[in-house]
Amino acid sequence: MDEFKVIEIKRSVFENNDKEADRVRAELKKEKTFLLNLMSSPGSGKTTTLKATIAQLKDEFKIGVMEADIDSDVDAKVIADTGVKSIQLHTGGMCHLDAGMTEQGIKEFGTADLDLVVLENVGNLVCPAEFDTGASKNAMILSVPEGDDKPLKYPLMFSICDVVLINKIDTKSVFDFDDNAVVERIHKLNPDCEIYFISAKTGEGIDNWCSWLRKEIKEWNK
Amino acid sequence: MDEFKVIEIKRSVFENNDKEADRVRAELKKEKTFLLNLMSSPGSGKTTTLKATIAQLKDEFKIGVMEADIDSDVDAKVIADTGVKSIQLHTGGMCHLDAGMTEQGIKEFGTADLDLVVLENVGNLVCPAEFDTGASKNAMILSVPEGDDKPLKYPLMFSICDVVLINKIDTKSVFDFDDNAVVERIHKLNPDCEIYFISAKTGEGIDNWCSWLRKEIKEWNK
Repeated sequence: MDEFKVIEIKRSVFENNDKEADRVRAELKKEKTFLLNLMSSPGSGKTTTLKATIAQLKDEFKIGVMEADIDSDVDAKVIADTGVKSIQLHTGGMCHLDAGMTEQGIKEFGTADLDLVVLENVGNLVCPAEFDTGASKNAMILSVPEGDDKPLKYPLMFSICDVVLINKIDTKSVFDFDDNAVVERIHKLNPDCEIYFISAKTGEGIDNWCSWLRKEIKEWNK
Repeated sequence: MDEFKVIEIKRSVFENNDKEADRVRAELKKEKTFLLNLMSSPGSGKTTTLKATIAQLKDEFKIGVMEADIDSDVDAKVIADTGVKSIQLHTGGMCHLDAGMTEQGIKEFGTADLDLVVLENVGNLVCPAEFDTGASKNAMILSVPEGDDKPLKYPLMFSICDVVLINKIDTKSVFDFDDNAVVERIHKLNPDCEIYFISAKTGEGIDNWCSWLRKEIKEWNK
């Protein structure tokens, strides 16, 4: 297993998070690093999706992963095993990352030589939606077992995402999940949102999601 | 469908939440109302578990449900259909309930004639764990699709609960979920925690969980 650093993130001192986020984004743009903010509930499969994404893109791009977690190193261990550069950010009980916290991670991590950095945000559908991290794009995962009603209950999260991955489609036989209903609910909140149905476990749909990501990274570096 | 009231909860003004929580708890004890604070991730099955619990206990106890949600009324509608008294608390974007917010709900709801009130907290494994609501007992649901590693990643939530329900056991065939590992991880954080394996959908295990709840309500009213 590869090594990874653990850093304890401090509470941000910036009063204007949006301004700070724009500054972080501009810096990343300058160094041609695409930052993807990946959000979801606990247990929706963020880390497994990341593993499948890394497997598909690691020969094309230099990839790094920043794993934000309240306390544990479980996910950073899994990601380090894929061979990409990885760092664990401990939020010290805080339920989200803002731009200042993200920047602490970026500085410790050293992202200048990376093409794609994925920030795996804290598992939470509420708080992370309220803070712009400075990412190039926002992505979220909704898994089939969570139910197709989630856009009704966590509207802000679905409104601020550029792309939603519907994960664990391999388990659809044991759940009542209406594909059309979920797409309609997401597009009502966010008409331009891209939606991909995937199974990080079986690999189904990962091609389409990776094509979108590839296109966005190229666009970012123009 | 029965009617239910929607109230917009205001930010609490109390500086000392623990003291306020003790005061709420003492008031509830005096009026012989048992308040269960039910927490989980989004989509773990809180509302379906509540429906199964209500079906089993509604002839023995006068039950009320306070549904906390950021914005929607989806769950309150489902609960109102069971015939028990129900109210929707809108947290206005806030990611948890504290004791002051819970008390606003209790006062609007009118709980003096109820034996059991269930507070369905905001779907979130992080923030609700940090605030004592004044409940008699804390319960959480972890669903099989979320994975057996969740106690490692959200340790505070598992530490403060009196009981953990492992839900959606009917879907175990499509997930890798280690019952022994999850029990060991929970008990390492919280040796006295009660754990019940249930399927709110099929009804499996609901008897055991309701026996525990029945015993606790009787204990509370002694």
